[in-house]
Amino acid sequence: MAEPFWKTAISRVEPNKILVRGYNLMDLVGRYSYTDLTYLLWRGELPSPEHSRMMDALLTVCLEHSLNAPSVDATRFVASSGVPLQAAVSAGIAAIGEWHGGAIEQAAKMLQEAVIQMKGKQKSVNEIAERILLGHRDQKQKVPGYGHPTHTQDPRTKKLLEVADSTHLCGPHTELAQAMESLTEKFFRKRLILNVDGCIGAIISDMGFDWRLGKGFFMVSRTPGLIAHAYEQMYYDKPYKAPRWDEIVYTGRPERKPPK
Amino acid sequence: MAEPFWKTAISRVEPNKILVRGYNLMDLVGRYSYTDLTYLLWRGELPSPEHSRMMDALLTVCLEHSLNAPSVDATRFVASSGVPLQAAVSAGIAAIGEWHGGAIEQAAKMLQEAVIQMKGKQKSVNEIAERILLGHRDQKQKVPGYGHPTHTQDPRTKKLLEVADSTHLCGPHTELAQAMESLTEKFFRKRLILNVDGCIGAIISDMGFDWRLGKGFFMVSRTPGLIAHAYEQMYYDKPYKAPRWDEIVYTGRPERKPPK
Amino acid sequence: MAEPFWKTAISRVEPNKILVRGYNLMDLVGRYSYTDLTYLLWRGELPSPEHSRMMDALLTVCLEHSLNAPSVDATRFVASSGVPLQAAVSAGIAAIGEWHGGAIEQAAKMLQEAVIQMKGKQKSVNEIAERILLGHRDQKQKVPGYGHPTHTQDPRTKKLLEVADSTHLCGPHTELAQAMESLTEKFFRKRLILNVDGCIGAIISDMGFDWRLGKGFFMVSRTPGLIAHAYEQMYYDKPYKAPRWDEIVYTGRPERKPPK
Amino acid sequence: MAEPFWKTAISRVEPNKILVRGYNLMDLVGRYSYTDLTYLLWRGELPSPEHSRMMDALLTVCLEHSLNAPSVDATRFVASSGVPLQAAVSAGIAAIGEWHGGAIEQAAKMLQEAVIQMKGKQKSVNEIAERILLGHRDQKQKVPGYGHPTHTQDPRTKKLLEVADSTHLCGPHTELAQAMESLTEKFFRKRLILNVDGCIGAIISDMGFDWRLGKGFFMVSRTPGLIAHAYEQMYYDKPYKAPRWDEIVYTGRPERKPPK
Repeated sequence: MAEPFWKTAISRVEPNKILVRGYNLMDLVGRYSYTDLTYLLWRGELPSPEHSRMMDALLTVCLEHSLNAPSVDATRFVASSGVPLQAAVSAGIAAIGEWHGGAIEQAAKMLQEAVIQMKGKQKSVNEIAERILLGHRDQKQKVPGYGHPTHTQDPRTKKLLEVADSTHLCGPHTELAQAMESLTEKFFRKRLILNVDGCIGAIISDMGFDWRLGKGFFMVSRTPGLIAHAYEQMYYDKPYKAPRWDEIVYTGRPERKPPK
Repeated sequence: MAEPFWKTAISRVEPNKILVRGYNLMDLVGRYSYTDLTYLLWRGELPSPEHSRMMDALLTVCLEHSLNAPSVDATRFVASSGVPLQAAVSAGIAAIGEWHGGAIEQAAKMLQEAVIQMKGKQKSVNEIAERILLGHRDQKQKVPGYGHPTHTQDPRTKKLLEVADSTHLCGPHTELAQAMESLTEKFFRKRLILNVDGCIGAIISDMGFDWRLGKGFFMVSRTPGLIAHAYEQMYYDKPYKAPRWDEIVYTGRPERKPPK
Repeated sequence: MAEPFWKTAISRVEPNKILVRGYNLMDLVGRYSYTDLTYLLWRGELPSPEHSRMMDALLTVCLEHSLNAPSVDATRFVASSGVPLQAAVSAGIAAIGEWHGGAIEQAAKMLQEAVIQMKGKQKSVNEIAERILLGHRDQKQKVPGYGHPTHTQDPRTKKLLEVADSTHLCGPHTELAQAMESLTEKFFRKRLILNVDGCIGAIISDMGFDWRLGKGFFMVSRTPGLIAHAYEQMYYDKPYKAPRWDEIVYTGRPERKPPK
Repeated sequence: MAEPFWKTAISRVEPNKILVRGYNLMDLVGRYSYTDLTYLLWRGELPSPEHSRMMDALLTVCLEHSLNAPSVDATRFVASSGVPLQAAVSAGIAAIGEWHGGAIEQAAKMLQEAVIQMKGKQKSVNEIAERILLGHRDQKQKVPGYGHPTHTQDPRTKKLLEVADSTHLCGPHTELAQAMESLTEKFFRKRLILNVDGCIGAIISDMGFDWRLGKGFFMVSRTPGLIAHAYEQMYYDKPYKAPRWDEIVYTGRPERKPPK
């Protein structure tokens, strides 16, 4: 039999009734927070109190980073062009790429694969940490989730680890991520800090999330801020934002005439 | 003096420090919910407990509506094309337009303008309600925030009004919106229900939000669901989703030959 | 009978055959230019040689405007985030809004409505031109298609009018647009030049295009350039483009502590 | 010295003057086609007559594929939501992903790498073709640019090869691509046809294009059609397009009550 074209396990709409992961949405609203219901959408189950508290920290810790973020800059340029609010926010979301939020996913993948391997091979955390760092160094790859262009000690990592500690959600992935941080000096020219992306990647792995949902945390975190930036650009900044012609350096061919 | 090209009142980043609306983000994470910090981003202040509770209901009540929504459908087609997660979510956000979530903004604008007028002119709620309905009927315009293609009684409106009641946040905008609902039968062929968009528009107006932020509520609400749909499409559905050629009805010119 | 969900008059796909507006696409490729087939898609018919020539000028005259354009800037920020090429181009297209290319549509609408009125009321071109300018001045509205922040004489307008003249495609809309330009000094503080958007709006109106397709010309024009900019950003510029934290001016609340 | 933040080799804007790749744009408009100037933007030089002719075929041969394409479907859903034209087109562009147009890039990369290898190692075309097919079979990977879900003989491939032949632009990449096609039966259960994506990938490689620009051809090709579909959806179809609730199959958790 042919598979139905329109199908989903996420929710069901009937006249006057909306089921989300089996629950009537009206049984949830007013009782569960936005954060809890985000968890329900992604995991299929409501969170425990610990998971709920951790989830709130994960979704707020990278709430905003001012114009020092390509997603915010993209949002503001689009917002200056005479478009509806959502168009500008949409462009900002499109910029949540491999170098901007994407390290959550990459770090979670790296850690999840390593922890599976660790269990199988009876290796110590430090042995695995060294192997990963060595592998990246030898292949001249960035270690996802380590280092930051602005922060020398990412304050968000410290805060997340505090919450993870108080909710007893630290596990092998976070342990490995921290072990790697303390070994970075041995393999690279300098200590590479565990940044917020790497730390989120580790904690969501300990919470049981699929690494493929990693960017979801960053997208949800940043959406209210992108909306605030689009709104600010549209009503409190220039209606057409672009550098002036004489601020742009032209590095191309000198002037020439086309062939006759 | 020239205005600075890069400026914002929303947040400030310094090495190892992130201020959001004046607060150090690390003083907030672990203490305030995602919902509270969304409120802070948009209003510049932290919410009272009542505003916080209402805000959570507003951000969860239209969490999901299955594939019965253009934003979800757009997300799923893009997700089937071999793109990263955020690209599909971005397309879904782009679909939060005038006919899909946009009525929040339109209803809030209509109600806010009417309440200002009401105060000036000493008119009763019913007089103003009748005037608005009459105006829309005469200009053959849809009344934004009223009627629904699937629900005959929007369960989300009832739930929101309960929360608004228990948090004492109902005010003149919600009163006017309800008065209008009960008068719709007088001006149109049938009763038009106050739908979730209209109800959100009314309550955020009573909470003091600028109507121009109306779509923001819908965007934040729907982002986790769009992520869930993109994820489901990418890992549990077809990798290339499109109707088959013989399911598409061609209504154009019959076959012809180009001129010699 | 229910309307089919999937229907279109634009094209039809069958195994081994693609019809576009009734023509077998394979009868067209190699004989007609990209420009001609764009015309076919939008008008339903192949262009005359004059329309073809004009169309090529219309689609090339605003090919590029360097980083001095929000669409290009949005493209480059998204391109720097670690995304596939099309994601960056998509963000640039999203920025073709009311203040960036959108004046083509607005000017064409204004001119088409005026020419219809002109025919009905036996008014002269100058009378109509004065009425439009007066209307905009009195309502403190910008006249769409007039004035430019960088160019004092838009070289693109002059070129387009030359081609329109040599193809005999100037008609009442272009005549009205030029009459308006020469009258701007009378109604505003200074002469407002007919810019490229206004001129495209006028010429496509004389060619019989619906004003609602106005932004289409700008989108097609700019797509190759957005691709070139995304490519340049990805392979010849910074992999993560954002202003440094200390280049961003913070205009918000001074630092404060959250309530206990 | 610090690198300038805003720089580009593509174009330069000065008051009343626009240079593109060194040429004054006004020296080009009216003399060169849209296709020629797309070539200029991407290659830095104007095309020869043969390259110009080939380029036109490459940009028109996959002009349209009706609703049988995720990009078109995404465009139409977004267009039905009450958004400006460009927002719907932007969503369609976002869907030009790895499974939809992306095979051009992948095929061009595969062929360019193989031809470099072929030159170095003095292998015959058939040896290299066999090695590539074997590699994909052994790693259970799709061969990019081969096979089609709708067409059993892609009419677009035949047409492109004709034009490539008549312009003498066939070279080692196209030769290799065709050799691979004729060997597919030997390695897979059935003959896999060289589809339009694979054929474009081969020809642009013989023309000297970087494979990283592969999706550019598809994006430019499809933009006029996406505009036509957005326009058709907005003015000749449903203003809110989504499957009815009872057409959607729910495959999730049965109804349940939340914990007390």
